[in-house]
Amino acid sequence: MKIGLVKGTVTATLKDPQLVGGKLLLTDIVDAKGKVLEAALVAVDTVGAGVGDRVVIVTGSAARQPAGVAGQPVDATIVGVVDGLSVTE
Amino acid sequence: MKIGLVKGTVTATLKDPQLVGGKLLLTDIVDAKGKVLEAALVAVDTVGAGVGDRVVIVTGSAARQPAGVAGQPVDATIVGVVDGLSVTE
Amino acid sequence: MKIGLVKGTVTATLKDPQLVGGKLLLTDIVDAKGKVLEAALVAVDTVGAGVGDRVVIVTGSAARQPAGVAGQPVDATIVGVVDGLSVTE
Amino acid sequence: MKIGLVKGTVTATLKDPQLVGGKLLLTDIVDAKGKVLEAALVAVDTVGAGVGDRVVIVTGSAARQPAGVAGQPVDATIVGVVDGLSVTE
Amino acid sequence: MKIGLVKGTVTATLKDPQLVGGKLLLTDIVDAKGKVLEAALVAVDTVGAGVGDRVVIVTGSAARQPAGVAGQPVDATIVGVVDGLSVTE
Repeated sequence: MKIGLVKGTVTATLKDPQLVGGKLLLTDIVDAKGKVLEAALVAVDTVGAGVGDRVVIVTGSAARQPAGVAGQPVDATIVGVVDGLSVTE
Repeated sequence: MKIGLVKGTVTATLKDPQLVGGKLLLTDIVDAKGKVLEAALVAVDTVGAGVGDRVVIVTGSAARQPAGVAGQPVDATIVGVVDGLSVTE
Repeated sequence: MKIGLVKGTVTATLKDPQLVGGKLLLTDIVDAKGKVLEAALVAVDTVGAGVGDRVVIVTGSAARQPAGVAGQPVDATIVGVVDGLSVTE
Repeated sequence: MKIGLVKGTVTATLKDPQLVGGKLLLTDIVDAKGKVLEAALVAVDTVGAGVGDRVVIVTGSAARQPAGVAGQPVDATIVGVVDGLSVTE
Repeated sequence: MKIGLVKGTVTATLKDPQLVGGKLLLTDIVDAKGKVLEAALVAVDTVGAGVGDRVVIVTGSAARQPAGVAGQPVDATIVGVVDGLSVTE
């Protein structure tokens, strides 16, 4: 999984029928200090995340494991909102 | 998912039988400002996208979830046309 | 698989029901000499690894093969604690 | 999918039984102008491609979708020979 | 698939039960001239490869296709030993 920072939302009127009703969020993948490691990953939200939240994003086939997105054409899903990171330097 | 910008089309007369009739588009993966993050990704279109459109591209096994491409040898599929991106800086 | 160095823990109260009770560790992917190749990969632990351990991390659909995480939305799992690396230069 | 340029062949006498008889080609992933984006990807051929051909390569689990390679341990398969690329700059 | 150069071995006493008895090799992904493209990939061996061998490595879900590793938590498997590379520059 990766740590993502939710930056905004993606609107697409014309889309796959299975994606209708879903919430697509624009995220940056970041490290523990907030440095951007990968930009502009679009993830579907399953836990009620919002802009500014630091989240846990799962990718690949695992992104379809949450009940709300089973069988959907999604490859990145927000599965948690990060409360805290404990890092030992 | 990633944001793609459709740049052109790919023609291949000699190809896998399952791909015959499909539309292969050449895309660049971009960020919210249009900066190219990854070049020359070939994606199959399922929503009627065209050159110049900004699109949502799903990759990996999820690319075979849309009904029109089930079972096909495709790893990148256009599943939406982007109307707008709302980004909070 | 990759070699990871466990750096810390990730806390997420609001998360996918299947992840409740699991232990999410923050890791850096490293080479044999400890050089960081990829930062901030979040992996679920199945072998009792702790901060400071060098571990074997499996990614992708294989990350759901261990019995403890079958069916969970995880894409990176710690499947071993490294005792030693024997490298011939 | 990616655009590949076939550079050569890979010979391996000792290999997985399922790969015996298959043709492994050494390719570079390129963009529309031929710039190398990723070197030395080994792909199995299913369409009769040869050295010097520009091809469409599918990766991941989709690489096992063509009938000729179903169930084989392959993660990159040539599924088309490119006739032309139409790009709007 | 990728071309790997076997650099050493990984020892892990504490590991997933399905990995017990398997041989984990530390490899570098290289191009045709031996230039390192990606360091420190840990691959399970199914063909009797040893340190110094140039090998064919399959990744992703395809890494679990060989009979010896079916169902195991592995994402990179050595499926051939390279005898020769024929490259047309």
